[in-house]
Amino acid sequence: MSGTLYGLGIGPGDPDLITLKAHGILRRVPVIAYPAPEHGDSLARRIVAAHLPGGQREIAIRMPLDAARFPAREVYDEAAATIRAALERGEDVAALCEGDPFLYGSFAYLFARMADTHRVEIVPGVSSLTAAAAAARQPLALQRDVLTVIPAPLPDDAIARRLAETDSAAIMKLGRHMTRIRALLERLDLSPRAHYIEHATMTGQRTMPLAEAPEAAPYFSLILIAGEGTPRR
Amino acid sequence: MSGTLYGLGIGPGDPDLITLKAHGILRRVPVIAYPAPEHGDSLARRIVAAHLPGGQREIAIRMPLDAARFPAREVYDEAAATIRAALERGEDVAALCEGDPFLYGSFAYLFARMADTHRVEIVPGVSSLTAAAAAARQPLALQRDVLTVIPAPLPDDAIARRLAETDSAAIMKLGRHMTRIRALLERLDLSPRAHYIEHATMTGQRTMPLAEAPEAAPYFSLILIAGEGTPRR
Repeated sequence: MSGTLYGLGIGPGDPDLITLKAHGILRRVPVIAYPAPEHGDSLARRIVAAHLPGGQREIAIRMPLDAARFPAREVYDEAAATIRAALERGEDVAALCEGDPFLYGSFAYLFARMADTHRVEIVPGVSSLTAAAAAARQPLALQRDVLTVIPAPLPDDAIARRLAETDSAAIMKLGRHMTRIRALLERLDLSPRAHYIEHATMTGQRTMPLAEAPEAAPYFSLILIAGEGTPRR
Repeated sequence: MSGTLYGLGIGPGDPDLITLKAHGILRRVPVIAYPAPEHGDSLARRIVAAHLPGGQREIAIRMPLDAARFPAREVYDEAAATIRAALERGEDVAALCEGDPFLYGSFAYLFARMADTHRVEIVPGVSSLTAAAAAARQPLALQRDVLTVIPAPLPDDAIARRLAETDSAAIMKLGRHMTRIRALLERLDLSPRAHYIEHATMTGQRTMPLAEAPEAAPYFSLILIAGEGTPRR
């Protein structure tokens, strides 16, 4: 009988923010898979390192920097083939997903390749979105608030249009877009309601009003814009 | 020394979708507090019932149906006073929050009353939003998708305006708004991309294309609208 592929939400970074369910699956599967840079450590693997029982086979899905020579499509095709071989030997495979598998997660690419032909189960996780709100001590949405989640790489006019139509917002994946986004929020007079959070729940978590935020933001950083009536502490 | 109030995200319903962190706090605090209807069981308490060690003091925050005679403001004032008394005796208190404390959670009302004067810690949880996406087997957002979270009680024109400006969307708190929202999505030609989920991860979970959904939706139900390019299975 073929095994099950788990899209395993492992939470935003604090190893204790994994669910009992994901923890149980993680400890019993013979194979784990995780995204990793071309060289060096995988953040997802590091988050769960203390929970691993030892002796599991590991599939590192390494994303080369040179996307022209090694397109992501081929990387996921190859990972899917390796995972498929394990499933067909009857082994369960847990694909580690930072945060939640279905909220901007690369797991969607494995899912698209496997879900029609194999058993795939999604285990939701704590997202960096709500973890950042907890860190910033700022509710994301109350009662009838509209909350809009916006990727920072979008152009200014696309972001401004969405911000004009929402009560609260999160601008994700800041990284090298920080300077531009900050200038945009100042222009839109949203800076006073904006809070910056980096590495939420991880070692090195920092959170501060956007006006006091550093010039350079890591990839794992975001800005939360509070609704006008939101209590903040 | 005064105790700590925890805003404890307990996840969307499956008792196994609580985090290790929330589970540990839940088992060691002497006092738990939770929202409850005027009469009968609290859903939040039921979700964690199997994890409770026994012997904890319990504060049920009961919301009367007659909001005119018993305004929510007074209910939260009274709950805050009871919790404050426990904290000042040096006891830690865990306020149970379905899903995540800061995503449409009533915990925000306790937070606003306590955060300036007492130690309050927010423990993020798995939200019903990502749990519903997992149940529907439909990614919420990919890459540069804008995701908009919209409360169903908003008027049609307000909802339509937000849907026109987003890639994917979640319409929360359906309940008695189901018939109106379904008609609206049909008018906007969004029905083919809409999926209905009720009681995600709880006993009685049901998920289906919106076109096949029942006329009557419980409060704990929502609609996910997939981005145009989202893979669905």
